[in-house]
Amino acid sequence: MAVADFWYEFASTYSYPAAMRVAGLAEARGVALRWRPFLLGPIFAAQGWRDSPFNLYPNKGRYMWRDLERISVARGLPFRRPERFPQNSLLAARVATVLEGEARAEFTRRVFAAEFGDGLSIADRERIAQLVAGLGLAPEATLEQAESEANKARLKAECARAAEIGIFGAPSLTTEDGELFWGDDRLEQGLDWAAGRRA
Amino acid sequence: MAVADFWYEFASTYSYPAAMRVAGLAEARGVALRWRPFLLGPIFAAQGWRDSPFNLYPNKGRYMWRDLERISVARGLPFRRPERFPQNSLLAARVATVLEGEARAEFTRRVFAAEFGDGLSIADRERIAQLVAGLGLAPEATLEQAESEANKARLKAECARAAEIGIFGAPSLTTEDGELFWGDDRLEQGLDWAAGRRA
Repeated sequence: MAVADFWYEFASTYSYPAAMRVAGLAEARGVALRWRPFLLGPIFAAQGWRDSPFNLYPNKGRYMWRDLERISVARGLPFRRPERFPQNSLLAARVATVLEGEARAEFTRRVFAAEFGDGLSIADRERIAQLVAGLGLAPEATLEQAESEANKARLKAECARAAEIGIFGAPSLTTEDGELFWGDDRLEQGLDWAAGRRA
Repeated sequence: MAVADFWYEFASTYSYPAAMRVAGLAEARGVALRWRPFLLGPIFAAQGWRDSPFNLYPNKGRYMWRDLERISVARGLPFRRPERFPQNSLLAARVATVLEGEARAEFTRRVFAAEFGDGLSIADRERIAQLVAGLGLAPEATLEQAESEANKARLKAECARAAEIGIFGAPSLTTEDGELFWGDDRLEQGLDWAAGRRA
């Protein structure tokens, strides 16, 4: 079975519409999807950015919010711009890292829906605990595992791997033969490639 | 008849595949297209960039070249990476500005085909003159008009207008009701919007 890696960052706006549709797109092509949460902060910092480029370049930021709103409307996704951007996504990324399989995918979708669908803070520990509980998992134990040294190291290794393979933004999709596709608008193309339909 | 503005820069890589297909996409939707050449240099300079972001951020640049190659292959477009990037696009932009209607559109496609299809220099005066001659126009007279003070001022005013409406990259598509769509991958969405099918 063909495999593709879906790299996403919880603070990333375009990771929201991508996360909401990537599983269906992959399934339709018979591609097994690996959900790979990572952090963009270290990658941005390495190229001299201390903030999101959408804040550093206001015209680009204004455009992105409008574009995201149009995409959400077109796809019937709720959209509400959070008061603060970017949000601290560290705890969400650690929890996603400690979860496996379908639990990770569903947790991811619920975090994005809370953040950009409802405009809520995902830096909030209580909110993350509630989202974990909503999956039928024990929030205390899950958060404890998420913040274990072993799991922190696992997320760090994923961030290093993302940087190593040239990822510079989120979402990104990578294939087994080393192709990189950046952005929600490259999901179909990337998954077609992964499935062997290289058109 | 619905109208849309297609803003492009001759040094911009993604303006190439966009220029090669935008007329067909607009025609299929009954949208009248205005071809609006402009220069990104002053806009980039205003946000502190003295070079293309694809050169300033090497991972992004590597990705862009590979992405452009994949897009060209998928669409049956010739692709050859020019030795120098970005190229000086001032003369090409002035000539496009002085031409009107179908001559401007066809000149634009030929410049992009020479630059990214054949990997040639478009900063070269002889090459621009040849492309003009290929359209059945007098190269000497056309270049002279292109470099007249009136035409230089016209291009400058277009650049100022692009900055004023928040354009930050190329290609961009704008609609009569003030929507901005950035990138080759937003052409369908932007033209659908212009045509009144806002999905």
